[in-house]
Amino acid sequence: MALIVQKYGGSSVADAERIKNVARRIVTTREKGNDVVVVVSAMGKTTDELIRLAHQVTDRPDERELDVLLSTGELISSTLLALALKSAGHKAISLSGAQAGIWTDAVYSQARILTVEGHRIVKELGEGKIVIVAGFQGITHEMDVTTLGRGGSDTTAVAMAAILGAQACEIYTDVEGVYTADPRFVTEARRLTELGYEEMLELASQGAKVLHPRAVELGELFDIPILVASSFTEGPGTLIHGGVAMEVRNKVRGIVHDLNVAKVTVLGVPDQPGIATAIFEPLVKENISVDTIVQNASVERVTDLTFTVAKSDLEKAMRVVEPAAKSISARGCIADAKLCKVSIVGTGMQNTPGYAARMFRALYEKGINIELITTSEIRITCIIDETRLEDALNALHQAFELEKGEDGI
Amino acid sequence: MALIVQKYGGSSVADAERIKNVARRIVTTREKGNDVVVVVSAMGKTTDELIRLAHQVTDRPDERELDVLLSTGELISSTLLALALKSAGHKAISLSGAQAGIWTDAVYSQARILTVEGHRIVKELGEGKIVIVAGFQGITHEMDVTTLGRGGSDTTAVAMAAILGAQACEIYTDVEGVYTADPRFVTEARRLTELGYEEMLELASQGAKVLHPRAVELGELFDIPILVASSFTEGPGTLIHGGVAMEVRNKVRGIVHDLNVAKVTVLGVPDQPGIATAIFEPLVKENISVDTIVQNASVERVTDLTFTVAKSDLEKAMRVVEPAAKSISARGCIADAKLCKVSIVGTGMQNTPGYAARMFRALYEKGINIELITTSEIRITCIIDETRLEDALNALHQAFELEKGEDGI
Repeated sequence: MALIVQKYGGSSVADAERIKNVARRIVTTREKGNDVVVVVSAMGKTTDELIRLAHQVTDRPDERELDVLLSTGELISSTLLALALKSAGHKAISLSGAQAGIWTDAVYSQARILTVEGHRIVKELGEGKIVIVAGFQGITHEMDVTTLGRGGSDTTAVAMAAILGAQACEIYTDVEGVYTADPRFVTEARRLTELGYEEMLELASQGAKVLHPRAVELGELFDIPILVASSFTEGPGTLIHGGVAMEVRNKVRGIVHDLNVAKVTVLGVPDQPGIATAIFEPLVKENISVDTIVQNASVERVTDLTFTVAKSDLEKAMRVVEPAAKSISARGCIADAKLCKVSIVGTGMQNTPGYAARMFRALYEKGINIELITTSEIRITCIIDETRLEDALNALHQAFELEKGEDGI
Repeated sequence: MALIVQKYGGSSVADAERIKNVARRIVTTREKGNDVVVVVSAMGKTTDELIRLAHQVTDRPDERELDVLLSTGELISSTLLALALKSAGHKAISLSGAQAGIWTDAVYSQARILTVEGHRIVKELGEGKIVIVAGFQGITHEMDVTTLGRGGSDTTAVAMAAILGAQACEIYTDVEGVYTADPRFVTEARRLTELGYEEMLELASQGAKVLHPRAVELGELFDIPILVASSFTEGPGTLIHGGVAMEVRNKVRGIVHDLNVAKVTVLGVPDQPGIATAIFEPLVKENISVDTIVQNASVERVTDLTFTVAKSDLEKAMRVVEPAAKSISARGCIADAKLCKVSIVGTGMQNTPGYAARMFRALYEKGINIELITTSEIRITCIIDETRLEDALNALHQAFELEKGEDGI
């Protein structure tokens, strides 16, 4: 008997009808003779509503209390799903993060899983039950409730699959799988049949919202195949695993974009030690993540320092950077919020010359200016004007012939 | 430094503004130099909404899952209250039933508290925090969430006060205290300054919704003074305690009513052993509580058996009783759902003759027929036609001169 871990996202359990639909899907898996553990997100917009409620009470909600508050969303959806399954005559039980043995550190709102003690789940499975686990939450050794941050339920699901030695982890969502590009912008975009962990990690990190990077990392670490598919259809989805065929590795697999990008340039920075610290330490203190950092070649011991932050953090970042720039006698700061990031992702890219050149030419031919470039082993990212996003995506999709058939699998 | 336990009901925390108002009241108590533990119910109609949600998924929600679902209501209100307090610059922390150490049996939806392990609360109080406990919930030794049934948050509050050795337990609600009768029916009804535990217990058991009987019992057992007062005004409320002055004990203290009453009569029952078992065992199996039971004097070894159940249980009860009556060759069953219960309550009643006579005369003078009569040591209850409720309450209020001044205290 195989063990399958399934995760259903918020839109898949948004109301009673959808919860019953999910229950039917779970039963189908169960009736194929599998043990089933299900991880569930909060219903629809519940988490946003709870956050709004907290903000009605205070401008700056304390994180410990907020985590308890937010954790109720998944308690509600998990019990309702268990009720639907029991009502349909199946043995089922819901477990909170604490009951499921998900121990985390005490970093509220962004807790990391330390370990999962699976004995309660194993006991319930042994009694023939379908186990529903509230996603996104865990508990500290002081018995305080934590949440795992964005995409936390994906992480819960993969962690469960890893600890329980599941055959597969299936992530059900409102899209059909992972696409070569966002189908809302690129009509020729194609669902991928399979992807390697690293490729998925880059896609997820660079803007693909379908799966959280932490979950992908965990999947790779424990070698858990992750299927991403729709909970509304019977499509085959996209399988993320470590055994992707050699032949399809050396090519661009997908194009991904991110609109939440803003650029800050500190002008006329004296080129001397300690400058980076003076600029970036205050940002870290304000909990602002800096993404790309570029320092232009120094001319006469003065340079420009450019970095990107999330668009949503820009205002806060400028409030921090302006006094910091002044303190190191820089000439000033300028910000640009009208940007986006476009990345091509595929393993083996760095070993195969010509990808970057093809990317730059495709953009150039459409008259799209490149503001910044960054690369990783399997990714090339260009930051461009946000109004040119759709043109860029389509140009790149054609340039790398992503509309063409499936990858020979 | 004294320790005060306060409990705020659902209407007192129904929205963000009311939660902030409650926070201000708590701070006032705290700033008088008291340690404060607060027990809170779910916001407004949250519990009803969660029940409705469960019924959208299934007709018969499993009780274990329903308890987890319902417990989220108090998690939400307790965290919001803690957020409001922290936001106003006070140290505070919310604790779930489990975190507060409230261990119960595993009778879902009606769990009983086995013990309260107060060490976490004591630790948090020791750090100068106001502790907010989610009411109505506990946890079994298997770490499953339970709820305490109706009025459960009152019970949580008194249990907390008992274990922590609190100086007082203050129950804040949307009424000014305990009244001599329901002010909606009796315009002359008067708030009582104080009441004994037994008197309050009878009032609560016979329909006064202001405080749950279990909480009163617990208060008596541990000798915890319980103040019932409004969270919306600064009124003095009603103090329930064991030291009520001797002088005021031998009189009627209040009149209470209950509209949730129906009568079942089994006609022509053969008067022989085993009959009561045949009728009542099936009711117990269906979890239907039987209140008053009256068996008429036997004439020629045939009798009528009359009992009352909650109006809401009548339909189910008749489905059970009809076949049972047939099985013992009774002549048939009749039901009457148009009834209500009116009780006068006061200590020492049984030692002072004339109360019952005065009650019956007052009803008789208004032409109100008495269907059934039951008594306890400190209570006389008449079951009458529900359309005569208001007349009965006013007649009794006058007959026992309850409008007259305060009880000399």
